[in-house]
Amino acid sequence: MKIKRLGEFGAIGRIAGLCRPPGREVRAGIGDDTAAFSHGPGLVLAGADMMVEGVHFDLEYTAWRDVGYRALASNMSDIAAMGGRPRYYMVSVALRGEEDESALMELYTGFEEAAGPHGMRLIGGDTTGTPGPRVVSVTILGDAGPKGVIRRGGARPGDMVFVTGTLGDSAAGLRLLKSGDLGRRPGAGKRSAKGAGGCTAGDMQHLVSRHLRPTARVKAGLGLGASGLVSSMIDISDGFSSDLGHILAESGVGARIEEDGIPVSGHLARCFGTRGALGFALDGGEDYELIFTARPRAAKRLAEICERAGAVIGITGVITKERGAYLVTGKGSLRELRPGGYEHFRR
Amino acid sequence: MKIKRLGEFGAIGRIAGLCRPPGREVRAGIGDDTAAFSHGPGLVLAGADMMVEGVHFDLEYTAWRDVGYRALASNMSDIAAMGGRPRYYMVSVALRGEEDESALMELYTGFEEAAGPHGMRLIGGDTTGTPGPRVVSVTILGDAGPKGVIRRGGARPGDMVFVTGTLGDSAAGLRLLKSGDLGRRPGAGKRSAKGAGGCTAGDMQHLVSRHLRPTARVKAGLGLGASGLVSSMIDISDGFSSDLGHILAESGVGARIEEDGIPVSGHLARCFGTRGALGFALDGGEDYELIFTARPRAAKRLAEICERAGAVIGITGVITKERGAYLVTGKGSLRELRPGGYEHFRR
Repeated sequence: MKIKRLGEFGAIGRIAGLCRPPGREVRAGIGDDTAAFSHGPGLVLAGADMMVEGVHFDLEYTAWRDVGYRALASNMSDIAAMGGRPRYYMVSVALRGEEDESALMELYTGFEEAAGPHGMRLIGGDTTGTPGPRVVSVTILGDAGPKGVIRRGGARPGDMVFVTGTLGDSAAGLRLLKSGDLGRRPGAGKRSAKGAGGCTAGDMQHLVSRHLRPTARVKAGLGLGASGLVSSMIDISDGFSSDLGHILAESGVGARIEEDGIPVSGHLARCFGTRGALGFALDGGEDYELIFTARPRAAKRLAEICERAGAVIGITGVITKERGAYLVTGKGSLRELRPGGYEHFRR
Repeated sequence: MKIKRLGEFGAIGRIAGLCRPPGREVRAGIGDDTAAFSHGPGLVLAGADMMVEGVHFDLEYTAWRDVGYRALASNMSDIAAMGGRPRYYMVSVALRGEEDESALMELYTGFEEAAGPHGMRLIGGDTTGTPGPRVVSVTILGDAGPKGVIRRGGARPGDMVFVTGTLGDSAAGLRLLKSGDLGRRPGAGKRSAKGAGGCTAGDMQHLVSRHLRPTARVKAGLGLGASGLVSSMIDISDGFSSDLGHILAESGVGARIEEDGIPVSGHLARCFGTRGALGFALDGGEDYELIFTARPRAAKRLAEICERAGAVIGITGVITKERGAYLVTGKGSLRELRPGGYEHFRR
């Protein structure tokens, strides 16, 4: 059935039927004026992110299910970057009405797939029509960890700059999706992935999946927050260079980053070469890995915490008193590391 | 300066500079991964609403400032309908980038004009580009009143159905804006406002202003919630007939509404006649007045509470055990009152 036949209230009914019902701490949810939930002592965390068709997702190569998964994961990542626990989400969605109701079901299935492992529940939102690109606007609500929140502004000179996981896979996956290279043999065309040593279909699949199904580092963020050892933290949505820049600006410090310390996956290096991989890793964005800073002596303890949460960490550099971010290349030369990630409106 | 020259981070800086900074209970706000605020005992309220250009607002006849004011007022109204107090808001906005930065400033000035009298503060959000219609997506956060929340599902047979203020003005104002009748003499054209007795420019201005600058009944809602006398409550966004329908459906009851009990303003009656006024009042929508139910003996007390909050209340009918909503006309005949308000996707 088309969504315009289903109608707004029919759509809301379908959504409520599909999503896991919240527990008793939620006194009002879908189908009331607002949601109402009880909250223990400590801070409430709240974040919001909007995704627009043609800007953040393209239905040509993204399933509705992946749109939902990715939209919620990116919001969960914001909570993770505060060292908090995501609890609830609300979704406002603008659709054209000509979509089949399966689009709606798939979208919310994607949300629930991202929400499920963390016990998160849908508690409200809005559905509306649009004559233009579809829009998915997510609000996420959560609790701060036991030691409060980790902000962007606490980095101190001498802190090490850590990062979870590997960087650049997501942006490379997006490039593959956009270029349509997935169907071709690697290296078959000018714009296609070209490996230093044999980019396989499995490598490409990995990169694409990192774009469509990013992992929010919720457990790692919680552990890092609870450790009391982390001075600042942010998640990578715009790109390592841009998001590190936010930490530096808020903290009033600079950084020296070692090119060799930027963690890239074998998949990425095989498909795009060392140089290409580094470009994606520094400026690509949508990795949803965490950048955080801490004293050098905390490194071992933080590595253990993250490992237990399923995340390997790397040391990429050091915070400096002198402002500005610099990249030390493999050959030892220094170049300025400018924010090269995505910024809206600038086109 | 055009927004695309200003860039996303420039835009965020401008917004942060314009809006009142939050108090100390907010530990993280604009410019961090999420907002973080402390919250006393009691329920947290959270609501979300999305407005799309061409569906919810038209820049041909709506200033950006009014877009902001109306978007936030409609969200505040949802909190009011729970008997709660609005505290914080977040805004995700999609713009084309070709707008002048004054559009952004005006939009957020409108938000702050609605927020100010209630001490509400902006604590976060998102800004993004779009190739299509602009989108304004608001999240509102608040506290429940001392006696918890008033839900939609508590109406009992024998309860009276109350409503604050007058109905239909907003929809009539929108009609005037759409038809361009404001510039003409009333009654000068087929589609223009036609009064039973002399629709003045002042009357039309009142109707238009009720559409562009609706009042969320925050104080009345708080007072009603704290009284412990109200069994169910909702705000009128889709239209009296539709929103009453939500109360009836959630409560598993019916209602008999007296046509003569539907409060309409003199402005509306003068400009659209008694029949026209009734149509707008029943099905028009976006009044942001409150519909609530309570035992008959509570009427006097509730009238006093609302009067102190600047709202006159009217009794429109009674809740019945038999399902269905019926309208008793002035002549005493009975007709079914079907939800006639706006429903998205249905076109």
